[in-house]
Amino acid sequence: MQIQTLLVALDLIGTFVFALSGAVAGVKHQLDIFGVLVLSFAAATAGGLTRDLLIGAVPPAAISNLPYIIVPVLAGLVVFWAPGIVRRLRHAVVLFDAAGLALFEVSGTQKALTFDFNPLAAVLLGVLTGIGGGIVRDMLVNEVPTVLRRELYAVAGLAGAAVVVLGDWLRLPPAPVAAAAALLCFGLRLVAIWRKWHLPIAEPPPPSNP
Amino acid sequence: MQIQTLLVALDLIGTFVFALSGAVAGVKHQLDIFGVLVLSFAAATAGGLTRDLLIGAVPPAAISNLPYIIVPVLAGLVVFWAPGIVRRLRHAVVLFDAAGLALFEVSGTQKALTFDFNPLAAVLLGVLTGIGGGIVRDMLVNEVPTVLRRELYAVAGLAGAAVVVLGDWLRLPPAPVAAAAALLCFGLRLVAIWRKWHLPIAEPPPPSNP
Amino acid sequence: MQIQTLLVALDLIGTFVFALSGAVAGVKHQLDIFGVLVLSFAAATAGGLTRDLLIGAVPPAAISNLPYIIVPVLAGLVVFWAPGIVRRLRHAVVLFDAAGLALFEVSGTQKALTFDFNPLAAVLLGVLTGIGGGIVRDMLVNEVPTVLRRELYAVAGLAGAAVVVLGDWLRLPPAPVAAAAALLCFGLRLVAIWRKWHLPIAEPPPPSNP
Repeated sequence: MQIQTLLVALDLIGTFVFALSGAVAGVKHQLDIFGVLVLSFAAATAGGLTRDLLIGAVPPAAISNLPYIIVPVLAGLVVFWAPGIVRRLRHAVVLFDAAGLALFEVSGTQKALTFDFNPLAAVLLGVLTGIGGGIVRDMLVNEVPTVLRRELYAVAGLAGAAVVVLGDWLRLPPAPVAAAAALLCFGLRLVAIWRKWHLPIAEPPPPSNP
Repeated sequence: MQIQTLLVALDLIGTFVFALSGAVAGVKHQLDIFGVLVLSFAAATAGGLTRDLLIGAVPPAAISNLPYIIVPVLAGLVVFWAPGIVRRLRHAVVLFDAAGLALFEVSGTQKALTFDFNPLAAVLLGVLTGIGGGIVRDMLVNEVPTVLRRELYAVAGLAGAAVVVLGDWLRLPPAPVAAAAALLCFGLRLVAIWRKWHLPIAEPPPPSNP
Repeated sequence: MQIQTLLVALDLIGTFVFALSGAVAGVKHQLDIFGVLVLSFAAATAGGLTRDLLIGAVPPAAISNLPYIIVPVLAGLVVFWAPGIVRRLRHAVVLFDAAGLALFEVSGTQKALTFDFNPLAAVLLGVLTGIGGGIVRDMLVNEVPTVLRRELYAVAGLAGAAVVVLGDWLRLPPAPVAAAAALLCFGLRLVAIWRKWHLPIAEPPPPSNP
């Protein structure tokens, strides 16, 4: 029971930090306050919403549970009215964002396993939960999603999701597996930022490319 | 019964004017006729489609009911073959667009209440119904959605949706509440255009912003 | 039974070639390998995923069936690690893409008919299955979808979908109808490329356009 409460708390922290990232993107593109709130909400919930639609968990938690609506609105208002706070705390925001990724990947993968998806689909849905919000956020402000071209963001998520699936396959107890997976994802993400690790980039296309 | 017929008629008018806005955007970006029709359809139905997916009303009305397919196609053809008509009627189009927003917000909010969503979620789904089409339309032609950076478009919708939810909470009769909500949204939108009201814009980010 | 196996094989070939088109777009925009794989997967499956969500076929085949996950990943890896192969085979890729379009349109329309949609909705869902992946692919790399402004791509799909619906309405045996529809779509697409047929483009807007 206490673990369940902890998980919900962590999930809401993830929602909050992803909403912060959305609101910051909105302020950067000089949206009005409504636009900033839409970006908060999209960044915080689009991944989970899409996952829930795909697995048939309708209506999605992000719509039917009040905290998932209130938390992004709060995050958006904080960024809009007090952008200085976010700037001062930007190192903390990177930490929280890594934590949000870790939590969303793990909870997304576990939810997919609960719905009896095959392991590969569960990993896919876990990664989608983690990166979907950022993709929609970037598309709304007309940018190529950073997760498609940046450091080991998604790979950290993949690693976490793979651990959850492996633990489930080996019938290990879910709580410690989830903790290990989240820590792996979180740690990998931070090391990747610190060491500037990135994935191989596609070679530039030849000039004659049609 | 007559009210039901009236509501369907108004909903189809809303569909038509939103489809016009999509087709105009397509012509502006020099799409071919198929592209113009896709934009008509997207602008007219994306909001309602997304709402229906999220609340589990599958298949969405916009797919299973013929008029919701035929009306956007007609609007697209009118704009494509007779753009002069739309230009001459552009003040009427602004009126119709405000009417479409009002109708979509109200019908979207009421539909969400029918599916037993909490009040905040119902407002959210009402606003999504009203603005979703415009967001998808703008994303398809590679623009930051105007609703995220323009005058009181969404706020008019929010006000209308809030009145519907409040009326439901107070157990007032739905028909007059819907009428009042739609009129409030419609009026607020027109006054906002007339007086050039707009929401506060986020302050420009500092140059050192990463 | 053999026809069923053939259809699945053809559907997977369609998935593969659409995934190639996504991966090529990713390489062109210098995404990292994860981004390239996301584009492969999006181009190959977004059309079918959206159709399945709209008709209520949840979870979509593209998520629950392993081959639909593995094939796009393979296509993405091929393009990423051996772009020369794709360049040398680019005429074959055009052929395969036309085949993919034909197969997706036909299977999408048939699936919609199975779910008892009206004929117009079935055509719409068939076209969506054929072009949805390309639209999401282009939106992810921040381009106006080519299908909205190019040669007779969607019209070839429309023709194929219309034949399927007509055959169903006349109660003709499905297998030969599907073959005829796919051949019509495939042939029309190739002739359109060869003769540079294209749809009428919207006339440029007047300078005073608001």
